[in-house]
Amino acid sequence: MSKAGGDEGGGGSSSEAAQQPEDKTPAEKVLSKLSATTIGPGWTRVSCPCCISERVEPLVLVKLGEKVRPETKRWLIRVIGASQKDGGAALLAHPGEDASGNIIVVSAPRCTLLKATEELGLCKTYRTEEMEAFSYIDRDNFKYSDNMEVFLTLAERQYIVKYELDGLRAQRDLRIPGLSDSHTLQQRDNIWQKLGSAGVIVDTFPLHNPNKLKDLSEAWYSGNQLIQPLDSVNGYFGSPVAFYFSFLDFYTWSLVPPAILGLSITYFSAEVRHEMDESVSDPSVEADSGPVVGGHMIQAVFSMLWSTVVMELWKRRSSSLSYRWGTMHLADRFAEPRPGFHGYLGVNPVTGRMEPLFPEWQRDLRIALVSVPVVGLFLGLVVLGMLCFYWAEAQVQQLHTDWDSLLSQTFLYMPSVLHIVYTNVLSTVYKIVAKSLTEYENHREESAFENHLTAKVLVFTFFNYFAVLFHIAFFKQDVPLLRKRLASLLVMSQLVNQVTEVVIPFLVDRFISAPHRTESEDDPEEDKFRNQSTLPAFPGLFAEYIELLVQFGYLSLFSCVYPLTAVLLLINNLTEIRSDAYKICKLFRKPFSPPVANMGVWRIAFEVLSFVSVVTNCWLLLLSPWLQQLFKEGGLTGTNILLLAVLVEHVLILVKVVMAILIPDEPDWIRKKREHIEFTSMQALREQKLHSEES
Amino acid sequence: MSKAGGDEGGGGSSSEAAQQPEDKTPAEKVLSKLSATTIGPGWTRVSCPCCISERVEPLVLVKLGEKVRPETKRWLIRVIGASQKDGGAALLAHPGEDASGNIIVVSAPRCTLLKATEELGLCKTYRTEEMEAFSYIDRDNFKYSDNMEVFLTLAERQYIVKYELDGLRAQRDLRIPGLSDSHTLQQRDNIWQKLGSAGVIVDTFPLHNPNKLKDLSEAWYSGNQLIQPLDSVNGYFGSPVAFYFSFLDFYTWSLVPPAILGLSITYFSAEVRHEMDESVSDPSVEADSGPVVGGHMIQAVFSMLWSTVVMELWKRRSSSLSYRWGTMHLADRFAEPRPGFHGYLGVNPVTGRMEPLFPEWQRDLRIALVSVPVVGLFLGLVVLGMLCFYWAEAQVQQLHTDWDSLLSQTFLYMPSVLHIVYTNVLSTVYKIVAKSLTEYENHREESAFENHLTAKVLVFTFFNYFAVLFHIAFFKQDVPLLRKRLASLLVMSQLVNQVTEVVIPFLVDRFISAPHRTESEDDPEEDKFRNQSTLPAFPGLFAEYIELLVQFGYLSLFSCVYPLTAVLLLINNLTEIRSDAYKICKLFRKPFSPPVANMGVWRIAFEVLSFVSVVTNCWLLLLSPWLQQLFKEGGLTGTNILLLAVLVEHVLILVKVVMAILIPDEPDWIRKKREHIEFTSMQALREQKLHSEES
Repeated sequence: MSKAGGDEGGGGSSSEAAQQPEDKTPAEKVLSKLSATTIGPGWTRVSCPCCISERVEPLVLVKLGEKVRPETKRWLIRVIGASQKDGGAALLAHPGEDASGNIIVVSAPRCTLLKATEELGLCKTYRTEEMEAFSYIDRDNFKYSDNMEVFLTLAERQYIVKYELDGLRAQRDLRIPGLSDSHTLQQRDNIWQKLGSAGVIVDTFPLHNPNKLKDLSEAWYSGNQLIQPLDSVNGYFGSPVAFYFSFLDFYTWSLVPPAILGLSITYFSAEVRHEMDESVSDPSVEADSGPVVGGHMIQAVFSMLWSTVVMELWKRRSSSLSYRWGTMHLADRFAEPRPGFHGYLGVNPVTGRMEPLFPEWQRDLRIALVSVPVVGLFLGLVVLGMLCFYWAEAQVQQLHTDWDSLLSQTFLYMPSVLHIVYTNVLSTVYKIVAKSLTEYENHREESAFENHLTAKVLVFTFFNYFAVLFHIAFFKQDVPLLRKRLASLLVMSQLVNQVTEVVIPFLVDRFISAPHRTESEDDPEEDKFRNQSTLPAFPGLFAEYIELLVQFGYLSLFSCVYPLTAVLLLINNLTEIRSDAYKICKLFRKPFSPPVANMGVWRIAFEVLSFVSVVTNCWLLLLSPWLQQLFKEGGLTGTNILLLAVLVEHVLILVKVVMAILIPDEPDWIRKKREHIEFTSMQALREQKLHSEES
Repeated sequence: MSKAGGDEGGGGSSSEAAQQPEDKTPAEKVLSKLSATTIGPGWTRVSCPCCISERVEPLVLVKLGEKVRPETKRWLIRVIGASQKDGGAALLAHPGEDASGNIIVVSAPRCTLLKATEELGLCKTYRTEEMEAFSYIDRDNFKYSDNMEVFLTLAERQYIVKYELDGLRAQRDLRIPGLSDSHTLQQRDNIWQKLGSAGVIVDTFPLHNPNKLKDLSEAWYSGNQLIQPLDSVNGYFGSPVAFYFSFLDFYTWSLVPPAILGLSITYFSAEVRHEMDESVSDPSVEADSGPVVGGHMIQAVFSMLWSTVVMELWKRRSSSLSYRWGTMHLADRFAEPRPGFHGYLGVNPVTGRMEPLFPEWQRDLRIALVSVPVVGLFLGLVVLGMLCFYWAEAQVQQLHTDWDSLLSQTFLYMPSVLHIVYTNVLSTVYKIVAKSLTEYENHREESAFENHLTAKVLVFTFFNYFAVLFHIAFFKQDVPLLRKRLASLLVMSQLVNQVTEVVIPFLVDRFISAPHRTESEDDPEEDKFRNQSTLPAFPGLFAEYIELLVQFGYLSLFSCVYPLTAVLLLINNLTEIRSDAYKICKLFRKPFSPPVANMGVWRIAFEVLSFVSVVTNCWLLLLSPWLQQLFKEGGLTGTNILLLAVLVEHVLILVKVVMAILIPDEPDWIRKKREHIEFTSMQALREQKLHSEES
């Protein structure tokens, strides 16, 4: 290892560092380049001999506040570099171009990475070629465990750095050099959170690796690839992103059968177009539409069963992916309180540690008395908006018939425009309100916060997108209008998506951002790193999942009235894959990705939709005039038809439940692999116990 | 410790024993009494000094075949007593009255019990008074860990003996002394299974403790107790039995609200009795029954919501019980193949060991092509029987009207009698068929076998008990008939239960079995132990759970037509608790009970019934003439009523789902305790790992 610039390279404990904060030697400029391929001078020393390596790879950039004093930065670098038993993170830190610059580049030595791999519960390839839960003691029997860049993916290495930094805790009370006394650390305080709130650390984000990014983008979206390089995506961006793109991929392919069915129904019944034309111009002409509605029926039953089959097959695919990516056996960890969490100090009954507590019943009370009514209010506003829209539309129609002037014709568009504006304003306001409501609920863990926020946004989005369609289907009972509305929604949303997701970002990047970011090969690495911090932070996959969910809703809930839905969605998704890939590669900062074993709550949302689809499809079938007529000819009364529909609905739900139970959630070979992983890690544990009993 | 009788008391390894099978010294008669209160001479020696105790408690009786030779018995005793690293079970064995007798009494020393406690994942009280997962290294910090009779319950100690015996495996190929070469053990063969199939071991069962049993039965069913001594039941019989009685207790108490409601409905509407009388004599007179059916409606909505609330509250109660009984954090174990499992020898992909394998697809094929059709056939036979019964009843009615003689009147009872006989024969045959079908499916694990058998019997039982009621409700749509049928079923089944469960066993025990079992205080303990083996084996809780499930079905599915259902069930269950307690205490051998954390699949069966109840109740409400009339007066058409009913059904199902999600499955304090147990056991693990890394 090289000497550290100045005297930052001490392996001393953080408390030692705190006692002698004012180091006399001023930091000398380190003009060396940080590089992934040469041995990096300026890095802190590693304590463990096995971790000394020829090259140090910059993994994470810590951006400091503008006013941070050099002694604070030196102290921070020492903490990052100190060993874990001295209260440090056992990582490698580099001060950037000099000690007074506002960045710190962080990397991780081998032992820290390996120990964290075991703590996270990642599975890696054993020498028998099987995946097994990694064990630090047994490290030499795992393949590639001497080469971290093959053993762990880039995303994993970067996440481990964040994991170690987030886990930094003060071993005892100490004053941070260069900061006022109000920011004194108490014992067991989370250092990273405290430094964040003190304004010392502005940002912590993983660095892009330009060469890898170039290779990835070429394999992913530059050409006309039909298959996404999912393993590389997992390696570079981590499993949450990889699971999103895998699902997008899987879902897009699974649109092929309904698309073919939809096309053939449209093609083979020439009357379809005829009837559609008529129904658009005059909804009442629907007498001679026999085969179309026969098509409806096939489409409805197909889409009800299709949605369950797709979700079951996705579970199987998802479990194979999580085996492949080694996230099958992730360890449960006791989550730290999230930064925004507050409460009175007390003893946590779970860990026995002093920390802020907030009683459960108080949170429940806040949810029941504040969150639920407010969310209800917004849902009410959606319905109110819809009713006003219908009322206003009737009014302007009336006005137009009465006056029939150019002015009244312009008025005809007013309700739609106003409604669109209203909906957009409402959903923007709602997002802010939902966030502050969830903040107010004061959840202790980040995951609970995320789940409650997701639930709130999900309910609203669902209402916002589907209220009109449900209203038309169940109250107006007007199939042609539903078809018209669905078709226009599909085409519109597709156009809007393409424009907002591909065209605008591309133009912005090409003509506005890019000129400011001109890089030449000769620029120091530090500048390139700093450039990355000008990119906006990755907003998460929330909006992307919502988009897919809404699509899935259109398809499974209402597609029986418009068989071409799947075709339109298929075309949309083929471009969606590319635009999403482009966005995450080029337009945002690289996100940290904790390893995950599946796509989490979203699967449940899709499954719920798949069950609701039975109700809507049976209802739409019941409404279809062809069926009504058929029954009337067969001499069935309305009551009997309804009874039959209810029976069919219950039977279909039963069939779906039975299908969901009968199709195993993981393929047989994955089940065996998983059990093998569990068995071997249990055996390893038993041996360790025996070992420590004997010693 | 005393000297062992003869030379059985060797701590030598089993392989050693095998090499010198023909011990020359003949076993001398040991006339000592085995006793739980004095130090027991004749027991094998313990290897570990901390386990030497003043008294040895006989826990389990192993009954050998009549023709077992003394050298085989001596070898077996040596294996039981040998330490685990020598391939033994590290237990204590006693040869009974002499070496040639056909029993072995087994007990367990402290260290074996403690190590098994950790392996099973039982929680025990820590010195902080909190429950924590037991850890052998940390044993001194657990309360009472020096007194096994307080630390572990009798049921746990006995189960651990069985667990160790079942886990005995040959360390290498060896011939069992006194047996022919065909019974040679191969390496890793399960010794206990092999000895069982060789006829050496006829039976292994836990011994009753007469004093404790006396105390328990006095506290349980002798007086007029309203509260069951559930902790003592758990201590004596183990958690599966304790969970059954807890559920029975909980369910009986939860019958009080519907019983009160049913009584008040019956009391406040004087017309009820009037209407019932009339409907029994003439089902068509139902015009003036307003308030009754109003009662129906309250009863229906109440019972729909009640069933969900009860099941959710039971989950909470169940989790508190499992915390209290220390079974909250049970370890997963890799189950051994069950004795009946066969297949070709191969490498198990999970454990990497040689053992019989049977491909999954072949089992699925057998289920799909054999089991499903056969079960379907039996369900068809149930329906066929029902249809024949209706047909025959119509025929004899016709005959009676035509002839009107004494002979024809006798014929009137023929269909009922034949149907009852048919049903009973069918269900007896089905039980045998179901067992052999499940055997044919060749499940590897005991639990899979049990689950498949339970599922088969459950489906059939459900069909058998409810097919007639469903037929009356949905096809005949005859509410008065349904009420008549339900009332007679309830009264009949209650009478039959009381007779078969209490009266007959009591009489049999008092007048037939008891005289053969006269014991005097002076009898040697061995004879008392041997007496226990004459009792029939405990048949399991299957039939008891089925009975409760059927009750629950009557109540939640159909009780709205007969409000007194809950009252009748309440009375029945108050005696049921006593008769079940009496049965398990007196009439059967004590069963082994593995620690469990809940009542398993049965909870799911109850929950499924609770959802089906929405469908039946909505339907029965729809049928009620009062509602029909009310709607007719309100000017609603049949279709609209039906639509309303469907809407109500969907809303109620939604409400039940939301309620099930909102009511947490475990109380808040239990959640914290559970998380604390998980946290501390994780911490302990981490420390052990650190320890073994450093050493």
